[in-house]
Amino acid sequence: MNKLQRCRAPVYEMLEQYRIVGNISYHVPGHKNGAAYDGVEGAGFLDEVMKYDVTEITGTDDLHHPEGVIKEAQELAADCFGAEESFFLVGGSTAGNLALILTACPEPGMILILQRNVHKSVIHGLMLAGVRAVFVEPLIDPLSGLAVAPAAEAVEAALAAYPEAAAVFVTMPNYYGMGSDLAPLARICHDSGVPLLVDEAHGAHYGQHPALPAGALACGADGVVQSTHKMLTAMTMGAMLHVQGQRLDRALLSQRLAMVQSSSPSYPMMASLDLARRLLHSRGSEAFTAGLAAVDVLRRGLAELPRYGLVQPAEPLHDGTPLHDGTPLHDGTPLHDGTPLHDGTPLHDGTPLHDGTPLHDGTPLHDGTPLHDGTPLHKAAYETQDPFKVVIYDATGVLGGFELQRRLEAKGCVPEMSDDRHVVLLFSLGSKAEDAARLLQALREIDSEVTSESPHTAGISESQNISTWNNLNVLQISAPVPFSLKPVSANEVESINLEHSVGRVAAEMVIPYPPGIPLLYPGEVITDQIQQRLTGLAYGGAKFQACADPVLQRIKVYNIQKGGEV
Amino acid sequence: MNKLQRCRAPVYEMLEQYRIVGNISYHVPGHKNGAAYDGVEGAGFLDEVMKYDVTEITGTDDLHHPEGVIKEAQELAADCFGAEESFFLVGGSTAGNLALILTACPEPGMILILQRNVHKSVIHGLMLAGVRAVFVEPLIDPLSGLAVAPAAEAVEAALAAYPEAAAVFVTMPNYYGMGSDLAPLARICHDSGVPLLVDEAHGAHYGQHPALPAGALACGADGVVQSTHKMLTAMTMGAMLHVQGQRLDRALLSQRLAMVQSSSPSYPMMASLDLARRLLHSRGSEAFTAGLAAVDVLRRGLAELPRYGLVQPAEPLHDGTPLHDGTPLHDGTPLHDGTPLHDGTPLHDGTPLHDGTPLHDGTPLHDGTPLHDGTPLHKAAYETQDPFKVVIYDATGVLGGFELQRRLEAKGCVPEMSDDRHVVLLFSLGSKAEDAARLLQALREIDSEVTSESPHTAGISESQNISTWNNLNVLQISAPVPFSLKPVSANEVESINLEHSVGRVAAEMVIPYPPGIPLLYPGEVITDQIQQRLTGLAYGGAKFQACADPVLQRIKVYNIQKGGEV
Repeated sequence: MNKLQRCRAPVYEMLEQYRIVGNISYHVPGHKNGAAYDGVEGAGFLDEVMKYDVTEITGTDDLHHPEGVIKEAQELAADCFGAEESFFLVGGSTAGNLALILTACPEPGMILILQRNVHKSVIHGLMLAGVRAVFVEPLIDPLSGLAVAPAAEAVEAALAAYPEAAAVFVTMPNYYGMGSDLAPLARICHDSGVPLLVDEAHGAHYGQHPALPAGALACGADGVVQSTHKMLTAMTMGAMLHVQGQRLDRALLSQRLAMVQSSSPSYPMMASLDLARRLLHSRGSEAFTAGLAAVDVLRRGLAELPRYGLVQPAEPLHDGTPLHDGTPLHDGTPLHDGTPLHDGTPLHDGTPLHDGTPLHDGTPLHDGTPLHDGTPLHKAAYETQDPFKVVIYDATGVLGGFELQRRLEAKGCVPEMSDDRHVVLLFSLGSKAEDAARLLQALREIDSEVTSESPHTAGISESQNISTWNNLNVLQISAPVPFSLKPVSANEVESINLEHSVGRVAAEMVIPYPPGIPLLYPGEVITDQIQQRLTGLAYGGAKFQACADPVLQRIKVYNIQKGGEV
Repeated sequence: MNKLQRCRAPVYEMLEQYRIVGNISYHVPGHKNGAAYDGVEGAGFLDEVMKYDVTEITGTDDLHHPEGVIKEAQELAADCFGAEESFFLVGGSTAGNLALILTACPEPGMILILQRNVHKSVIHGLMLAGVRAVFVEPLIDPLSGLAVAPAAEAVEAALAAYPEAAAVFVTMPNYYGMGSDLAPLARICHDSGVPLLVDEAHGAHYGQHPALPAGALACGADGVVQSTHKMLTAMTMGAMLHVQGQRLDRALLSQRLAMVQSSSPSYPMMASLDLARRLLHSRGSEAFTAGLAAVDVLRRGLAELPRYGLVQPAEPLHDGTPLHDGTPLHDGTPLHDGTPLHDGTPLHDGTPLHDGTPLHDGTPLHDGTPLHDGTPLHKAAYETQDPFKVVIYDATGVLGGFELQRRLEAKGCVPEMSDDRHVVLLFSLGSKAEDAARLLQALREIDSEVTSESPHTAGISESQNISTWNNLNVLQISAPVPFSLKPVSANEVESINLEHSVGRVAAEMVIPYPPGIPLLYPGEVITDQIQQRLTGLAYGGAKFQACADPVLQRIKVYNIQKGGEV
């Protein structure tokens, strides 16, 4: 699309027109363009936005059957994000994840291959769709202990074990901005004839600037959900679902979206998606210049503050450039000039040891293909880090993540989130250099405050747990875990010793922390391997979330042998 | 709650505070309080609202686990709307209807009794929950041809036939503002031990002013969904779910809401719910004074425009006052004075016909209880009309509803909706007397324009269809219709003549118009009675929507005898 087209914002322009024309509303919404608050104290910010808060009337189009401005706006979005078709979401990435799963698995009992560490909306999708989930282990970064995505080989193994699988679902990047190239995974999925679905909630900006990792669509994913409000600039709850290719039934997808989203979608929300796309589409990669410069300020400043470590991909043992540049290792001249190698005096019987023909025929000793195919010689848990997600920790081990967040907030700097160890600081194209400066100032102050205090334990003891966790074979896949809407009822459950749990079916979720990934879902068979892993984690001092016993001496299982599938 | 408490708006106040404190955002959303649009042409209305578009950070609470300002705001809402507990919905009434059904019917195969004419979100709820739906016929208003709710007796019969039913679900009022007292229905449900769930999307204002009908909660409903944006003043997509009593599992309801709604809910949306509630809560019934006055202006003006008919409940044949005032019908004096009734000449054998004792013993002939119990002698399809929904039609039959809407829009007056005959004009507490005046002016102009034009057919021929429709026994209930997510696949369906369809299972929805209510859902067995009814409607010239053949000579059925339950 040309620059002029990219600068349009059809939904927003329609709303401006609506406001200017000033027709009288004998329709919903009841606030009547905000007039309901006339003369009443404190309508607040709503005054302005309500002038644009229309509904489906003549000319405003219909999200669930777009034929006008919403259709145009979605086509512009598809162009901007590299999709064949884009759908505006007013129910957040949640709605997109639900719809993708309900489309790929349209009837109960179908198999979906997915990583263990997914957003709860994905689990809700499994429940609504009645999916039998085959879980693949994510790779864990040994330095940070954070879980990323599964190895492509692990998904390949799962597809081989369950050729009837309907689709593969992964999250990329993770909440910390860590990720890897999805192209090999897309190829593996497509070779098996299944679509690759990607929760790219945290990567709506990917692929839009050379400093950013490639997006999932560019890597070949079939269905991609993006939280436009998270790393781009839509209103919170504004998201998009992008599709390409023929592996997803788009008519069904559209029906599923109408099923899980409001039949009275918010126009300000849709217009904010339109405007967020326009900001990008009209300015291109330039849109990120200021934000990336802000991050740069922060990184340079952090380099001078040794207290704070920065989570970033380990330097590969090899940087991926060919070990040999392809020029012949030998230039083709004879290795020997033909003169006798020996002067003729008998060494043993006087016959020359060499007959004088060249020892090498002159062809290159190497055919010029790189000696290494360019894949990292060491398989890292992740290769790319979103520059806008700055993940720091106290390398001295004094401050845990929660405490560091608390101290930052006390200084007016509000992080995105924290865990035991890390604090995630989220920048975007809306961030400014002074935001980085202010953050550095706060970090400097905290550094000097903490140094003068008596040190206390940050509770950073995950290395032991991580090593236990990593004992596992990353190619391990679960048996299909049947999800459903049926609540677990107390009388079908019993609490038993963990050591006696092998072969039983879990009736509660078990999330060892760190790294905070569900190791068991309700309905999952407790294998010998899982039981050993849980025991190891328990001995290692892990805390267990979501389940009744935080030290997991006891575990809730179904009191009948339920749903045990192989 | 006292006046001071009612005037609070905790979520909105928190957002104002957030804006004033002006912390720096190192978190989502990416627009950074709107800064992303600084210096960019046309951020439009978003500028202001984005200053309030926060997410779950310290102090902003969490919709799905409310413990702070959202909890407070929901408690104020519960007080205002007469609930025990209220839930803010950011996904519209759609989210509320889905969550109610997924809660009342937590596992597939459960029976829900509901009226045929429900919103599509309810059908989506049936599909997601895998419900077996027992449909009850709505009453049809013979004057307008519009469908309202089922008779309480019909629901009672359904509950008797399906004592295992999990709940009863009705819509009240309908889109036209027509309704009736839900109290008898609530009693019937509770006598059977099941909750009454009400889609009160169009009645969020009910019960808040003496001129408005009672709300569903006041009538005893257990779970009630209200579109706060429709008839009150929240932003579009802002709605509430109210519950009372112990018949709904609230923990499960909360889980279901988290399942079908965004995990990044919009704070401006929630604040708009807070402010809409405050407007009502702080002003009480006075909040409606201006809006009701506007409607009054319109009604008085319409009375002088004989072209336009107004849909309103028929005067009951009897007004409900006792037919007898309770005084004895006889004063107790003997009806006969004791003198012989006959003069003694033999009539047949000369003995007196009466022995002279009083013919009546003097006790009152009537015991004084009213001769009629006060219920209307004629069962009306509806009894109440929302004054804010003004439903008009061209009583001369010249203009159909769609044409009348088109002409109103051309004059800058945008109606809520229209059908073949009617136009719905929606007023609210935000409407002003001048809105009514402007509408009257437009109606007067249309009146004079149309009178001077040659008359054309308005296509109002529904009376025949309505009478055919009404031939049916309103107490009729369907066999359970199994709903699921499974799409109908082409190879399991065949198209047959309607006359041969008895006993087969419909594979498409059939909506005769008028009155536009699904008479068959996919999965529903075509009984002899339904087939006759469809045949009658087809002969009567009804159009059929949603199905392949608009005149319904042929109908799509499953080519295997599927799911036929009794």
